Amino acid sequence: MLNPNAAGVYAIAPTPFHDDGRIDEASIDRMSDFYREAGCDGITVLGIMGEAPKLEPEEAVAVATRVIRRSRLPVIVGVSAPGFAAMRTLTRAVMDAGAAGVMIAPTSNLRTDDQIVGYYRQAAEAVGDVPWVIQDYPLTLSVVMTPAVIRRIVMDNPACVMLKHEDWPGLEKISALRGFQKDGSLRPLSILCGNGGLFLDFEMERGADGAMTGYCFPDMLVDVVRLSKAGRRDAAHDLFDAHLPLIRYEQQPAIGLSVRKYVMKRRGILASDAQRKPGTALSATAKAEVDYLLARLSRQDERAGRLAA
Amino acid sequence: MLNPNAAGVYAIAPTPFHDDGRIDEASIDRMSDFYREAGCDGITVLGIMGEAPKLEPEEAVAVATRVIRRSRLPVIVGVSAPGFAAMRTLTRAVMDAGAAGVMIAPTSNLRTDDQIVGYYRQAAEAVGDVPWVIQDYPLTLSVVMTPAVIRRIVMDNPACVMLKHEDWPGLEKISALRGFQKDGSLRPLSILCGNGGLFLDFEMERGADGAMTGYCFPDMLVDVVRLSKAGRRDAAHDLFDAHLPLIRYEQQPAIGLSVRKYVMKRRGILASDAQRKPGTALSATAKAEVDYLLARLSRQDERAGRLAA
Amino acid sequence: MLNPNAAGVYAIAPTPFHDDGRIDEASIDRMSDFYREAGCDGITVLGIMGEAPKLEPEEAVAVATRVIRRSRLPVIVGVSAPGFAAMRTLTRAVMDAGAAGVMIAPTSNLRTDDQIVGYYRQAAEAVGDVPWVIQDYPLTLSVVMTPAVIRRIVMDNPACVMLKHEDWPGLEKISALRGFQKDGSLRPLSILCGNGGLFLDFEMERGADGAMTGYCFPDMLVDVVRLSKAGRRDAAHDLFDAHLPLIRYEQQPAIGLSVRKYVMKRRGILASDAQRKPGTALSATAKAEVDYLLARLSRQDERAGRLAA
Amino acid sequence: MLNPNAAGVYAIAPTPFHDDGRIDEASIDRMSDFYREAGCDGITVLGIMGEAPKLEPEEAVAVATRVIRRSRLPVIVGVSAPGFAAMRTLTRAVMDAGAAGVMIAPTSNLRTDDQIVGYYRQAAEAVGDVPWVIQDYPLTLSVVMTPAVIRRIVMDNPACVMLKHEDWPGLEKISALRGFQKDGSLRPLSILCGNGGLFLDFEMERGADGAMTGYCFPDMLVDVVRLSKAGRRDAAHDLFDAHLPLIRYEQQPAIGLSVRKYVMKRRGILASDAQRKPGTALSATAKAEVDYLLARLSRQDERAGRLAA
Repeated sequence: MLNPNAAGVYAIAPTPFHDDGRIDEASIDRMSDFYREAGCDGITVLGIMGEAPKLEPEEAVAVATRVIRRSRLPVIVGVSAPGFAAMRTLTRAVMDAGAAGVMIAPTSNLRTDDQIVGYYRQAAEAVGDVPWVIQDYPLTLSVVMTPAVIRRIVMDNPACVMLKHEDWPGLEKISALRGFQKDGSLRPLSILCGNGGLFLDFEMERGADGAMTGYCFPDMLVDVVRLSKAGRRDAAHDLFDAHLPLIRYEQQPAIGLSVRKYVMKRRGILASDAQRKPGTALSATAKAEVDYLLARLSRQDERAGRLAA
Repeated sequence: MLNPNAAGVYAIAPTPFHDDGRIDEASIDRMSDFYREAGCDGITVLGIMGEAPKLEPEEAVAVATRVIRRSRLPVIVGVSAPGFAAMRTLTRAVMDAGAAGVMIAPTSNLRTDDQIVGYYRQAAEAVGDVPWVIQDYPLTLSVVMTPAVIRRIVMDNPACVMLKHEDWPGLEKISALRGFQKDGSLRPLSILCGNGGLFLDFEMERGADGAMTGYCFPDMLVDVVRLSKAGRRDAAHDLFDAHLPLIRYEQQPAIGLSVRKYVMKRRGILASDAQRKPGTALSATAKAEVDYLLARLSRQDERAGRLAA
Repeated sequence: MLNPNAAGVYAIAPTPFHDDGRIDEASIDRMSDFYREAGCDGITVLGIMGEAPKLEPEEAVAVATRVIRRSRLPVIVGVSAPGFAAMRTLTRAVMDAGAAGVMIAPTSNLRTDDQIVGYYRQAAEAVGDVPWVIQDYPLTLSVVMTPAVIRRIVMDNPACVMLKHEDWPGLEKISALRGFQKDGSLRPLSILCGNGGLFLDFEMERGADGAMTGYCFPDMLVDVVRLSKAGRRDAAHDLFDAHLPLIRYEQQPAIGLSVRKYVMKRRGILASDAQRKPGTALSATAKAEVDYLLARLSRQDERAGRLAA
Repeated sequence: MLNPNAAGVYAIAPTPFHDDGRIDEASIDRMSDFYREAGCDGITVLGIMGEAPKLEPEEAVAVATRVIRRSRLPVIVGVSAPGFAAMRTLTRAVMDAGAAGVMIAPTSNLRTDDQIVGYYRQAAEAVGDVPWVIQDYPLTLSVVMTPAVIRRIVMDNPACVMLKHEDWPGLEKISALRGFQKDGSLRPLSILCGNGGLFLDFEMERGADGAMTGYCFPDMLVDVVRLSKAGRRDAAHDLFDAHLPLIRYEQQPAIGLSVRKYVMKRRGILASDAQRKPGTALSATAKAEVDYLLARLSRQDERAGRLAA
């Protein structure tokens, strides 16, 4: 079960489809193996990049269950929904199937501090006594939470054990939350960072516990987290910077998932890079750009012997 | 089956719950009878005011099915969803159960004309060969469709037979669409108006075919539509104006549904005015204000013999 | 100088233009006389409905100065601006010219409670020791302030003496603020209501001190406020309800100002209903609709002897 | 005068202030010299990053005039304003002072294609016969323009000679516009790219003419544009990638300008990194992070002999 000591890399898993839109179980298995072998500490399924709203309820449960069984890693399941009934049902089903916890994003109509805190109080009631994660992603969700609001949510809800941090800019937020813990006003809380990893280098230095993102080279995320925790600052940045051109490319809104699935297909993890509708597809030029970035990455890799050496 | 000649009043039905949040079948039946007896020409279920996102998929189908069977009126079912899979599944289930058509709202991320038209093309594919309704409600959905965009959607998709018009302000939009039909660039299309009925008086005069809204006195809507079509302008406005203080009160965002359910409970239609979470409740003062408006309405009613005399 | 005891009706004045876009001084004078003769307690210029952003800085000062001199009423000047430099300059100029205070709307990028409170702290610094008004208008400004946030702003800033209340729905907010005053946590504060007057009947009963809106019949606003304060509830509602069809028509976003200026031109107050670009114009049909509503209002007026008798 | 052949790097200039908020003329001069010596082809002042809304009208003219005279480069002036009167006045003043053209951002309330096209038609009327630039920046301005809408604007308005492209993602948009030119449906148009330069490497390859951004190393932008135009793809990417960690850091919303001014102060260009209120300031930790990135950049520089060698 997820707890405030969770750390390392939780891969945000895409949902693999066949070209015709059916769920691709074989790719789910390969992907689960891939994440474990890459050194990930956990997997998050049915997140925003998991195309969760495009799945039928029973499909959602099936995907989560398959990843849980195959990966043998702690699995966090995104249960965000416009209504609490669906949230409750999905939570029960995936916890029964062995999930480690669930992740809850706020609905985009929330504006004031009290509205946000009130929403999480109701959501916590809905999911029951299950460890859960706050998703703080203003760029996509249009909900802005101050550090003080996050503190209120955490202190109000004992089952809240983790923050998926993807505010942008967000470095000062990590510092503020860690400051709250130092002054005793906030209890322990795991902070894993999203945003495609775009600021992971500095997020680790600000006190994050790791990454929760789906960048297509999770092994790099694992190494950056490790190097950073070991105090090898320059080595962490060297490795990170080598990947930054691709991280940046993958971080483009709307087409980011296409890039990610395309690379995972090229790497032999997914059989298809198809998305369910409404989705996006890469143009031939965009694919060639990704290919070029991969080629540059691999040349750099050769030069360096091993990337994270 | 719904077609472009649909006219009159389609009541937007709330979903009746018991105080503990279970669906209240007996109230569904009473409500269905009530709408038929009030002279409604159809019923729309699982709309924004139907708390649709708070229902489990099987509950949604059960509610729609019960209304279809009990009311023996044409029933339109809201099937808006963040993903097309859920939209397709719900559409099939309710059409099998005898629905007259489905209603589709755009997702709130759509901005450009092409994005909106493209979204409806994909949605039309998802629902298949089933009559459907465009919901045009910018205040809540944040999507702005010009008359020309609505024309493109209608001309692109033969199964699109109706516009639920609730732009605000929207009178010129009705005139523009009827103008397109006069110049031959738009085929026949039913236009029913929402927005709680707040502009029904003039919407009818601009060429609307009727109302699709859940105002708690559907009999008044029926009479206004009838009087307006009969050319009895002053009588239509007299009746409408008598209700306007309450229409205005019910039209408040966020608490409108509370007002509506409260009045329907007072009128003996619903056993409870409960909403599923997240919901809102009326304060004692607000209830007293609604009571006051109802008392004024009823005095006016007495004065006038019968309201729509 | 404006203080927390301000009450009654402050008319939101449009800026009168000639057809060619030049400012129309003669109409400013007539309008100033008209508001005073209608019984208004004050005038607010350069508000959102005053087309303030379309004026050059020197024009803004000239308009405010002319209204101040001619009306001999307390005049509040909207000084909202994207930057504090412009806010400071305009405030100084109009206070020198004899304004009673200034009104400040938040910038639309503000989201969290702290951002809003912080913004008003900086704005208060910018305007200096001058009485000022919070404008709380989420529908147009996209900024949502809880009662607790308004309390923080008021308690932080001694020069803040009034709330222009136009949240929607907003009745509970008035009750909450008055409750804060009862429990001693909020100091005296004038609350005048906007939103075109659409809820003035109940706002007065919730504890508002009056109206600050530009509805084209300010005499009616004056009478409703007076009747309500005198405890003549039914009479206040009777008068209000007679105007509600037009209030509602004038309250349409984007075209509301066109309706207002059109009626003020018809009533002989403005020489032209022109707006500076970007503006909107009423269609012939819309004008006929307004004419019809005015005719109905005048018939009702005759029936009642005098409207507010 | 600006024309569709404009190419290369137009630096987005910040407005230099003293610590007390007064405009710092000496820093304006140093900055103007710096941009010219870095090889920039032009300068853009009073853009979003130029704190334009915080300037008084006469200050805005003074800043633009000083940069025009000192730099002897083509200067584009941001004239975006909520009203056309201010836009017209500022345009006349800066064109009289020798500006090469003006830049116009859409107001954030625009949604539909026709609204956007209509806005630019009115803006073009307001600025008169002066070369102007479309600013397409949805992330900040909330206005989404399709390639077809940009084409309509360009074809409707002969004086429109340039697109400041900062859609995100935006690579396909450049390809689409260049495709329109190939098929003859769009006339020549300069495309300079913003977004802090984050995608400049690929934007050049997609057909952009250069960059218009304020990244604190304009010499690098100049070199990347030159290398890319010379077909030296790998060299362009090598140079670009070396700067990407800092580009990415500077590209954070809200604090980006603080980073930029801090670096420009460290480089001796600005005397102070102060912003007018409302502004942001870097924490000590953030400054140390920027210092670290600068140190890494300079080490890389040494290793490479000269960065763009």
